[in-house]
Amino acid sequence: MQLNDTICAISTSPGMGAIAIVRISGKEAWSVLQSVFYLSSTISSFEPYRIYKGEIRDDTLVLDEVLVSVFKSPHSYTGEDLVEISCHGSTYIQRRILELLIRNKCRLAEPGEFTLRAFVNGKMDLSQAEAVGDLIASQSKMSHQLSMQQLRGGFSLKIKELREQLLHFSSLLELELDFGEEDVEFANREEIKALLTNLKNEIQSLIDSFLVGNVFKNGIPVAIAGKPNVGKSTLLNVLLNEDRAIVSDIPGTTRDTIEDCMNIHGFTFRFIDTAGLRATSDEVEKFGIERSYQAMEKAMIILYLFDDLTFIEKEIAALEQNYMDKKIIAIVNKSDMLQIPPSWNRKDMFFISAKKKINIEAITTELHEYALSLDRHEDVLVSNTRHYEALQHALTALLHAETAFENQVSTDLIMIDIRGVLYHLGSIIGEVSTDDILGSIFENFCIGK
Amino acid sequence: MQLNDTICAISTSPGMGAIAIVRISGKEAWSVLQSVFYLSSTISSFEPYRIYKGEIRDDTLVLDEVLVSVFKSPHSYTGEDLVEISCHGSTYIQRRILELLIRNKCRLAEPGEFTLRAFVNGKMDLSQAEAVGDLIASQSKMSHQLSMQQLRGGFSLKIKELREQLLHFSSLLELELDFGEEDVEFANREEIKALLTNLKNEIQSLIDSFLVGNVFKNGIPVAIAGKPNVGKSTLLNVLLNEDRAIVSDIPGTTRDTIEDCMNIHGFTFRFIDTAGLRATSDEVEKFGIERSYQAMEKAMIILYLFDDLTFIEKEIAALEQNYMDKKIIAIVNKSDMLQIPPSWNRKDMFFISAKKKINIEAITTELHEYALSLDRHEDVLVSNTRHYEALQHALTALLHAETAFENQVSTDLIMIDIRGVLYHLGSIIGEVSTDDILGSIFENFCIGK
Repeated sequence: MQLNDTICAISTSPGMGAIAIVRISGKEAWSVLQSVFYLSSTISSFEPYRIYKGEIRDDTLVLDEVLVSVFKSPHSYTGEDLVEISCHGSTYIQRRILELLIRNKCRLAEPGEFTLRAFVNGKMDLSQAEAVGDLIASQSKMSHQLSMQQLRGGFSLKIKELREQLLHFSSLLELELDFGEEDVEFANREEIKALLTNLKNEIQSLIDSFLVGNVFKNGIPVAIAGKPNVGKSTLLNVLLNEDRAIVSDIPGTTRDTIEDCMNIHGFTFRFIDTAGLRATSDEVEKFGIERSYQAMEKAMIILYLFDDLTFIEKEIAALEQNYMDKKIIAIVNKSDMLQIPPSWNRKDMFFISAKKKINIEAITTELHEYALSLDRHEDVLVSNTRHYEALQHALTALLHAETAFENQVSTDLIMIDIRGVLYHLGSIIGEVSTDDILGSIFENFCIGK
Repeated sequence: MQLNDTICAISTSPGMGAIAIVRISGKEAWSVLQSVFYLSSTISSFEPYRIYKGEIRDDTLVLDEVLVSVFKSPHSYTGEDLVEISCHGSTYIQRRILELLIRNKCRLAEPGEFTLRAFVNGKMDLSQAEAVGDLIASQSKMSHQLSMQQLRGGFSLKIKELREQLLHFSSLLELELDFGEEDVEFANREEIKALLTNLKNEIQSLIDSFLVGNVFKNGIPVAIAGKPNVGKSTLLNVLLNEDRAIVSDIPGTTRDTIEDCMNIHGFTFRFIDTAGLRATSDEVEKFGIERSYQAMEKAMIILYLFDDLTFIEKEIAALEQNYMDKKIIAIVNKSDMLQIPPSWNRKDMFFISAKKKINIEAITTELHEYALSLDRHEDVLVSNTRHYEALQHALTALLHAETAFENQVSTDLIMIDIRGVLYHLGSIIGEVSTDDILGSIFENFCIGK
C-alpha cells in the first residue's frame, strides 16, 4: 500500500443522511482543500482545529455549502494533515465531492487506511488500531467496554511491560553471545528463571481471560435443549422478543439485528442452533445423541426444558454429570398444565409457560446473573483471536526456553526461543508486523475509518 | 412544537459507519455538553467554531473518545447554540450517547426540527428550508442544481421582489381606506394597472417554469410504446443497464436505485409503465386505445417501437398528429433482421437491435439532447409543488384584482384580492405561515436535519 499519497473517503454510514463527512488525509490534504473550497470570509490561512464555512465548487458549479474542519500533522487522527468536510448528506453530493477530490489528486482510501496510517505514524499501536474496528462494530455494553479498554491502551501497556522485562534480559544474553568465546555471564540465571516463570503465569492468565473476553465480545453461547415438543422454539422466540423489549430503539438509530442473539443489560447471549435435534424417542432418552451433544458441548449455558416431572430429578443429575463445566438451567415448561405435588421442594428449577409468557423474567434474570458472575472485573481481558493465538505462540516459545534453561542448553539456542517470545508479544502491539498481518487486520475495516 | 427546549439527534445516515455525528441545539446545548464531555486539556471556556478532543462519559464510564465542534448563537445552522459530537460510528455508541443526552435534559428532535429552527430564527426563509430537504434527497445533477439554486435564495429573492412591489401599492391603498370618507387617491391607478400586468406576467412565467422544473426534479417522463412483441421490455432493460454503466458507483457510497429511472449525464428519465398495453391486434392498430393513450399522454417523450417498415410512415404521421406537444422518437427494433430498401432515406428513425444492443447509444444521445433543449438556463425554475400551487392561487387572486380594477369596484373589495396575492406569495417564503404548513413541510425531513 502506498502511504505517501493523499487519500479521501466518505467516513459516515453509507446512504442518505442529514450530514455526511468526507475525510482527506495526507501531505496534500490542505492544498487539495484549497483547490475546491471557497470560504465565505477572507482569511490569510487556515488555522488548525477550527471550523470554516464555505462552498465546495467544481470549477464554477457550487456542489454544496459545507463546514470544513482542518487538522495539522501530527495532531490529527492519522497523524497527517487532515481535513473533514461536513456536507449535506445527499448520496449524489457525497459521490460528487468524492469524484472531485479524486480528480484533484486524491486517491480513494482503502478500508481502514486512515487507522492504518494512525498506526504507521505512531498515533496508536496495532492492538489499539484493532480496537477501533471492534469499537465501531460493537453492539452491546460488554463488547463496547472491551474494545474501549483496548483502545485506551490498557492491554497494550500490559504486553509492553511483559515484553520489556524480557528485552532487558535478552539484551544481556545477546551481549554474552558477542563475547561468545570468553564464557562470561552478564545475565543472572536465577533472575532469568524467575522472570520466565513470572512471564509464563502472566501470559497464561491472559490466555485464560480469552474464554471470558471472547464470549463477552461475541456473545455467551446458550443451547436450548430438551425432548421434542417440549417448547424449545417457543421459549427461544419469547426470549428474543423479551430482548427487543429490553433494548428499546430510539428512532434515528438502526440497530443491526443479529439473528438468534439477545441482549440482557449489556450482555449478549448467542443461541446455538439446536433445531437439528430431531431424533426418535428411543434415542432422545439417552441424552447422548450426536447432534444435541455437539450443540450442548459448544454452549456455556444449557437451558434444559421439561414438560413432565416424572423422571426429572434423575435426568437433571445425569445432565449435571455430563456437563460439569457448564451452567445448567432446568426449566419446567407448560407448568400451568402440570400437577405439582405439594411435597415438591426443589428450588433450582424454573416453572414457566413459554406460550403464556409466565415467569420468563426469572430466566433472563438467571442468565444475567450468570453473565455477571463471569465478569471478574479484571483489568485486562483478551477478546481478539489474533492476540489469543499470538499469546499461545509466545507461551509455547517460553516453555521451550524454560526447558532449555533447565537443560543448560547453549545460550545461542535459548536465544532462538526468547526471540520467538519477543516476536509474538511484539506482533500483538505491532512492534513487529508484516504487510500480511496488516493486510488481514485492516481489510475488515470499513472504508473511511 | 415546543421550540424553547434543547434538542438532540443523530445527524448522519443511520447504521454503522466510521464516524457518526450527534447534534445538540438550543439554549442549553453548551451546558448539556459540559455535563457529559471531559476535555483532554484544561481550558477556561469553549471558544466557538473550534474543535475539542475529549471523552463522553456516562458518570464514570467512558462511552467514547470524541471530537466536539461548538457553535454560538446566532452563528450556527439553527441560529441557536449548537454542538456537534463526532463519535465512533458504532450503532451502540450512537444510541448510548443519545440516551445520555436525553437523560441530561435534551429532547429527541422531531424530523427536520433543526431546519425548522433555522427558519424560525431567520437563518433561512421557508423555500430555502424546503430546499435543504430537496438537496439531501437529490439524486441527479438537475435535481441537485435546482435545490442548490433554491437553497442559495435565487427563487426567494424573486418572490420577495414581486411581493414588495405589490406591498408598496397595497399600503397606499390601505391608507386610502383609512381616509375612506374623503375620497382621496394616494396610489396612481395607471401605475397599479401596469404593476398588476407586470406581476401577472412574472407569476405566469414562474408557473410555466414548473413544467421543466418539475421534470428536472422528478425525472422526464418517457413512455415506451408500440405493438405487442415489438421489444419494449427488452429496450427498457437495455436502457436501464446502460444507465448503470453511465453512473458508475464509487465504493463507500450507496446509490438508492429508483426502479425504472435512468440517469443520462445528470438528467433523470422516468419510464411510465406501459405494461398495461395488452390489447387485441384489432384495437392496437387504431393507436387510440385507452391505456396506451393514457401512458403516452403523461409522457413528454414517446419512444415508439416498430419491427416492420410496411406502414411505418403512415403510423408515424398519425402519431405526430395525435401527440403534437410531445417528442416522438421512432425506433425500428430488430433492424438486423429486416431488409431495408436501398431507396430508404428517412433520417429521423433509429435502427436498432435491443436484444443485440446495436445502436442503443444513439437513443440515449437523443434523450440527452432533448433534455438539454428543455434547459433554458433560466435564473429561476419552480420545482416545488407547494410553490406551484401558491403561485396559481396568487395568479387567480391577481386576475380578480385586475378585473376588479377595470370594473372600478370599490377599493375595500379590491384589497381583499390584493391581500390574497400578498398572502400566497408570502406563504412561499414563509412571511406568512401556519403550523399546518410547517408541519406538512418538515414531517418529510429526516431526523437530525
